[in-house]
Amino acid sequence: MGHHVADRDKLLARVRRIAGQVAAIERQLHEEADCATTLQLVASVRGAIGGLMEELIESHVREHMARPGLTDAARAAAAEELLAIIRRYGK
Amino acid sequence: MGHHVADRDKLLARVRRIAGQVAAIERQLHEEADCATTLQLVASVRGAIGGLMEELIESHVREHMARPGLTDAARAAAAEELLAIIRRYGK
Amino acid sequence: MGHHVADRDKLLARVRRIAGQVAAIERQLHEEADCATTLQLVASVRGAIGGLMEELIESHVREHMARPGLTDAARAAAAEELLAIIRRYGK
Amino acid sequence: MGHHVADRDKLLARVRRIAGQVAAIERQLHEEADCATTLQLVASVRGAIGGLMEELIESHVREHMARPGLTDAARAAAAEELLAIIRRYGK
Repeated sequence: MGHHVADRDKLLARVRRIAGQVAAIERQLHEEADCATTLQLVASVRGAIGGLMEELIESHVREHMARPGLTDAARAAAAEELLAIIRRYGK
Repeated sequence: MGHHVADRDKLLARVRRIAGQVAAIERQLHEEADCATTLQLVASVRGAIGGLMEELIESHVREHMARPGLTDAARAAAAEELLAIIRRYGK
Repeated sequence: MGHHVADRDKLLARVRRIAGQVAAIERQLHEEADCATTLQLVASVRGAIGGLMEELIESHVREHMARPGLTDAARAAAAEELLAIIRRYGK
Repeated sequence: MGHHVADRDKLLARVRRIAGQVAAIERQLHEEADCATTLQLVASVRGAIGGLMEELIESHVREHMARPGLTDAARAAAAEELLAIIRRYGK
């Protein structure tokens, strides 16, 4: 299921900012920029991706797990999806 | 609310293993062990703590969020607790 | 200072793959794709960014810290740059 | 090689604090404390272990990589040790 429109616009703005930063990393590598400068940029993209992931987890938990009126089966399925993501990447 | 007894015994075994590793780190620092050896041990405790955290998150999600028969309020509260932990430490 | 050309081409290929994945996240949000599917993709971008970061750290350490013939001052500066990145993002 | 005594004392104090927190986790599991409380504690131990790891990496980099007067071979070995740790756990 999709996201509320306002939330989606905020998420899209986040993703576009990340896309811009990734393009800047590519440019820096082309221009043989200073190693540490590129590292800083990569590290900050990593933070931004982490922030996006938290937003999406939050939205997933609220919409598909905590929201009143869901079926037990829908909740159980959403819980397993969340746990799979936490197990694989949540470190 | 507590955990199932079998799960709790497994969790306790995990925590005791971590306590043993932390004691070994202390010993290595006392004995002025090789820096890289201690780093390896610290890194492996970090992995073990991450594993324990995943177990506890899994148990929290199953017992307090996905389990049928909970009230909407209890689920909402458990969801907020989970999200607070993910926001602060889940990176 | 820049990177060896072969390494740089590999790094650029990595970055372009990440850019493609970020574009796919944007598309999925537009199309209101399933929440868990997007989360999986974001999580895998996060892994890819982590991999890129490791490559860059490796290159930084080899070129600017471990390479014979550097001055003490250059090594000390490169060490501080590395530690700043590890302190801020290395978690 | 070992650490400076002052640094070592600070590191030992950190490790003992972590040992105390791990003991508290064990107690909480025994007493069937609230799930979210234990999770908070585990998450804060994880942060503390991360802090210890950063300290040790810092000390490793300064003593075994950046310090003037080391041989090229010693530096290269210390660099490989550091990179192995970052690759395996540095995420």
